[in-house]
Order: sequence, then structure tokens, then C-alpha cells
Amino acid sequence: VTWVQGAADSPYGLHHLPYGVFRHRGWVPRIGVRIGDFVLDLEAAERADLVLAGGSLRRSVLNDFMGLGRPQWRAVRARIVELLTEQVHRPAVEPLLVPVTEIELVLPFAIGDYVDFYSSEHHAGNVGQIFRPGQSALLPNWKHLPIGYHGRAGTVVVSGTDIVRPSGQRSTPDGPVFGPSVRLDIEAEVGFVVGVPTRLGDRVPTAHFADHVFGVVLVNDWSARDIQAWEYQPLGPFLGKSFATSVSGWVTPLEALEAAWVPAPEQDPPVLDYLREEQRRGLHLELAVAWNGTLVSRPPFDTMYWTPAQQLAHLTVNGASLRTGDLYASGTVSGPERGQTGSLLELTWGGAEPVTLADGTVRTFLEDGDTVVITATAPGPGGATLALGEVTGRVLPAR
Amino acid sequence: VTWVQGAADSPYGLHHLPYGVFRHRGWVPRIGVRIGDFVLDLEAAERADLVLAGGSLRRSVLNDFMGLGRPQWRAVRARIVELLTEQVHRPAVEPLLVPVTEIELVLPFAIGDYVDFYSSEHHAGNVGQIFRPGQSALLPNWKHLPIGYHGRAGTVVVSGTDIVRPSGQRSTPDGPVFGPSVRLDIEAEVGFVVGVPTRLGDRVPTAHFADHVFGVVLVNDWSARDIQAWEYQPLGPFLGKSFATSVSGWVTPLEALEAAWVPAPEQDPPVLDYLREEQRRGLHLELAVAWNGTLVSRPPFDTMYWTPAQQLAHLTVNGASLRTGDLYASGTVSGPERGQTGSLLELTWGGAEPVTLADGTVRTFLEDGDTVVITATAPGPGGATLALGEVTGRVLPAR
Repeated sequence: VTWVQGAADSPYGLHHLPYGVFRHRGWVPRIGVRIGDFVLDLEAAERADLVLAGGSLRRSVLNDFMGLGRPQWRAVRARIVELLTEQVHRPAVEPLLVPVTEIELVLPFAIGDYVDFYSSEHHAGNVGQIFRPGQSALLPNWKHLPIGYHGRAGTVVVSGTDIVRPSGQRSTPDGPVFGPSVRLDIEAEVGFVVGVPTRLGDRVPTAHFADHVFGVVLVNDWSARDIQAWEYQPLGPFLGKSFATSVSGWVTPLEALEAAWVPAPEQDPPVLDYLREEQRRGLHLELAVAWNGTLVSRPPFDTMYWTPAQQLAHLTVNGASLRTGDLYASGTVSGPERGQTGSLLELTWGGAEPVTLADGTVRTFLEDGDTVVITATAPGPGGATLALGEVTGRVLPAR
Repeated sequence: VTWVQGAADSPYGLHHLPYGVFRHRGWVPRIGVRIGDFVLDLEAAERADLVLAGGSLRRSVLNDFMGLGRPQWRAVRARIVELLTEQVHRPAVEPLLVPVTEIELVLPFAIGDYVDFYSSEHHAGNVGQIFRPGQSALLPNWKHLPIGYHGRAGTVVVSGTDIVRPSGQRSTPDGPVFGPSVRLDIEAEVGFVVGVPTRLGDRVPTAHFADHVFGVVLVNDWSARDIQAWEYQPLGPFLGKSFATSVSGWVTPLEALEAAWVPAPEQDPPVLDYLREEQRRGLHLELAVAWNGTLVSRPPFDTMYWTPAQQLAHLTVNGASLRTGDLYASGTVSGPERGQTGSLLELTWGGAEPVTLADGTVRTFLEDGDTVVITATAPGPGGATLALGEVTGRVLPAR
């Protein structure tokens, strides 16, 4: 049991311990680990030799630490648990705790490449029906490979960053026009952060997933549907996505999710060898989307057709190398029911079925001033629950 | 006139002065500038206070220097010309020249985001006819915006890097199969390197192009057509491209290309305001593609429908920020004639019309052991010619 006040029953207890990078008192951003309502300043802890990580905790991004690999990640985590439980360490460690109310989180790692998948069968099916009515909802390739594309790494921002409504071209019956997007949407996703890199030409088999992936963030892949619909053929989404992608400030290490693995949906038809898994595993993460404070959806991550291990195997099967800090996101998480969709496009069925928020306002897509908060919980050990770091953003008017 | 032996008549004379990062004698890679058959070691030059750039030339990548902006770029270039022309500097500078035969170029800058456009009307038309026979060659959006997508920045490699044939899924009448790509192709392109960044939310109007773009590289965007054809719907190319993209080791500064600007093709229908240019300008670069030593194509860059200034304006019109080191490529450069195509897909019309190389061998797509060299020339001041750094690569068998 931790000696930190109030942390024992918190979704940020010893079973969780997510990492982040925080500003406090005008310091250069420092690496910290969350415990209850506090952040343990790991820069100070490593400087005081309370934890040893080769200097990798004395940085303003997690990349060096994430590059160390699983044995080191485990050792540091075990040491942090010691520091936060053994009374002998309390005098040295307690002064290094900062209340979370006094900090501001910044982007926790330098993003290498950002890849976005499209791995929810329900989402792909819904989008297919909305965009291509009357045709087969899933394209012929969808069940054979995890469809994905590269997004813009340079516009990945930390939770809390305001989102300026993007402008761009959209199609009208009179031809394309330019202006602020009129169909601004969210995509609630789960992101996987690469720690251990590979060399060009190497592949990561599904069984090696946990040797490379450091942890998990929540992602909101903001999407301007009108811009996207006009631009995306034949090379895929571009400006409809590239204006901003928000990630949670806390990175949940994979170790904290060991109790959250559940069997993934069966795949039919069978997949090619390189996508096979001895044991198909998904994560039992329960997402929630709040729109101006109204809970509008509960996307269940365990319904995803393609698993994170399959996504990583696919991403590297052509020999593409990984860098520490690469981020790949699941794609919009949508369950089989309307109240389980990870986008407003699906929630309002292309805008045809508006939703009413708690304050009585009616919405189809995002309006200026709207705020979206995506949260998620996961089962921890022994019946405990952990709460992934939230990802939130408010829409500002177009400039 | 430069005092450097043989440089006066070279395509790497004073009118060119491309920058690169080189290895020599086991040193940590250093920044240099090419003059004739030599490289001037700019690390040593800045250390000796022969040139002043705030320490930005004492790095192993060009990024810090590229971030300084055009006034500084001009000042450094003018100073380098002084050093290489005035006899008074010769005693100090001559010892800092290294023969190009003794160096190895490395990747000249850390890539931020890599965007690939699709801006040749002839290329888009050819691909449309080959992939979608019987349908309109250009999609409805093509003449309204420069179509583009994000590629994988982490697999951009320097010219000379061997290319391992990628494996992946391709479609067959019996369903998808996995194996080495059987339609490995090139794309001859011109890349633009961003020096001066922008903040999230800012746009770069077409008139501000030269305030942000530092220079030009040649690009070979290796493409596995069979993988691409199966995967690309609906989110665009992914593994068919992400295994490798080669760039020239020399970066030609925009200043060196002042005599190469020519009027760009007229656009019909007229474009939206943010894509308008007071004076539409393209670059008169003459590319050449050699396949195992046989010149097979001469793609003319001045035929591109969308200009580099339009591409940058489009890329940022939604507020997407730029980072120093961002690279955006033109898309395959193809002229109106068969001998002017920038891809083998077009050159052999989807593989239907093989080409015979000088050694008598017959080819459709790349075979293991094949080498492709892309070069380009541009007009310089006073009738001089400059040669962009070549981009070369050899295909190794799949692992």
C-alpha cells in the first residue's frame, strides 16, 4: 500500500503509474509519474539517485526512457513502487510530490511518425454506409489487412490544446468553395507509443508487440468531414485531418494493462500468416465521449477487429523501420450500437439525426466553443480500475 | 571566379553551392558545401570564424542552419562566395577542402513530416487510365486542389542507400497472397525542404513561399505497385510506399535556382483565391532517369500543373504548422510523352510494353540488382548549368 495520501483507492494508484511531462513553477518541463492526485518529479528523483535510468528521466520528453526497453521499464516501475510504498523512502520522496492541480502537462514525447488505422468493423461499416450508400459497406481489402495511413506528426498536440476550426475546400453543387469547415468531427481512438526502434528492413512479428510498445494514450483525431470527403480520392485523407490530433498527457505503460487483455473478436476469413496471433488479444478499455459535459457515447475498445499486435506487424511487414516515439492509433472506436460510436458522423448518422445535449442545445457536428472530453477506464489487478489520461479540446472559431 | 581548381566550369560552381552533410575519416558527420569536385568543411570554417552562422554549421544536420531564414541563408552564401573567390582567404580555406571522392554523404537534415503531392497532370492522367480504364482519367477534385498525402518520414534515406525489395499483400484472382513485391517501381520527383517553421494555425500564402523553403532535393519515391493497388482504398497509399524514399545528399539552395524559374502552365478552371499566384512560376528542371545505365526517360519539371508555392499554400491552409526539416515532394514528374515519364508503371504502360536496356535485357518493373539513378539539371545565371545532386539506389532481394 502506498503512503501517498488518498492514492490507494485512486484510478491512479500503484497499479497504474502513468508517465507524463509537466510544467511547474516555470521549470523546464520535467518527466513525472502520477500517483493519486500527485506527480512524482522523476527528474529530481533521478538526480537524487532515488531511481536510476541512465539519465533518461532527466529530459523534457519520454523518448530516451522509452528507448531503453522492457527490462528497464519494468525495473524503473518496480523501483517507483518501492519508493511510494516503503516508509524508509518517504522522507526523501515526499518533497518530490507535486499536486496535479499545480502542474500543466505538455506533449509527453517527441512524435516520430504518426500512423492512423481504421480497425473497427462497426466504424468502417458505418462510414461505408454513410459515404457510399447502396454499396457494400466494407471494401474488399478490409478483412484482409488493417487499413491505415500516415498522419501529420507535427500537429499532434497535448490534451487541453485549443483546436482552431480549420478552413479548406468543400464540394457544393456549384463547385468547390473555400471556408471554415462546416462538419467538424472527432474520432475517439486509442494510441500505441513505440519505445524500442527497429532497423530498416526488420519486421515485428505479432508475438514481439510488447518488446516494442511502451504504452498507451487516448487520441482524438479531429476530422473535418467536408474537407476530407472532397480531397480523399485517390490518396486518402490529408487536410481534413492534418490540422490537429490531440493525445492525452499521461502515457499508461503496458505493464499497467496486464489485467485488461481480453480475447479479441474472431476473424473470418482467416488472415495471412504474418497477421496470425497465437492468442488474439484486445484491450478491455471502456471509452466515454462527453460533449459539452453530456455523455454521448461509450465506445468499447474490445470490439476492435484488428489488434494492436496485428497493426504493428502489418506496419513493419514491408521492412519499414520504427523510431522511438512513433505513434499508431487504432482508428475510431465504435461498437455495434449507436451510443457506442467514436465519431459524431456516426452518432448523428451523417448529420441526419441530431443529438440533444443536457443543456437542451441540439447538435450535429461541433460548433465553436464546444468542448469534447474523451476518457477511458480499464480493469486493473484484483478488481481495481484504472483511468487513462483524458484527452480534451475546445473548438475555437476559424481565423 | 573561384580559385578552386576546375570549379569554374563545373555544374557545382559558385552559382550552385549545394549543402550536404558528409562523413570523412571517421569524423562525426559535418556540414559542407560543394564547390567543383571538393567539399568545403563548414564545421571547420565556422570554428575558425571564417563564416558566422551562430554555430548552426557545427551540427550533423542542416536543420539549425535551415531554421535561420532567408537573410541569414543569403549572408552565409555570400560569405562562402567571398571565401572561395578572394585570394586573401585561400591560405585559410584551401586546407578545409576535401575531395568529394573521399567523402560519404549522409541524410542532410532530420525530416519533420514528409508529404507527397500528385501534381503532374500527365502522371495523374496516365495512372488514371492504367488503373481505372474506361473512366475519366482525372478525378473531379484534381484540378481544384493539389492532391497529396503524408508519407513515412522515418524511412527517408539518403541517395546510395540500398533498397530491400518490400514484401506485402497483393491481390490475385484466388484472394490476397503475401510475398515480395512483383511490381517494384520508382517515382522521380523534386522535393522542397522547409527551413522556417510556422505556428499551428498559421497559413503560408503563395507569395511567402521563398520565406519558408530553404532548398530543393531530388527524390525517388520507391513504390510497390501491387501492394499499393490492393491497400490504397479508401485511405491512400501506405505500405506500398513506406519501405523507403530516397533523397539526394545535396540540397540546392533556392538562391541557386533564381535563373530556373519559368512560367507554369495555365490553370483551367481557375483556382480558388488561396491558390492564386500573382505570377505562376515553375522550375525549369530537366530530370533524367537511368536504369542500369540506360537513359530511359527525361521528365520535364516545368510541365507540373501545381507549383511548389501552391503546394505549400494548400498544405498549410487548414492551419497545419510547418517544422524545420519538413519535406514535400512534387509527385511523380511526367511530361506528355512516353519518354518523359517519371515512373516505370507509365513507361511500360502498366507492364504491358516492356523496355529494352542497353545491355539487351528486357524490363517491365525493377528486378533484384537493378540500379536507378535520377539526375537533373537547371539553368544557372549567364547561361551556366547546374546539376542537382543525384539520387541513386540499388534493389536488393527481399529478406
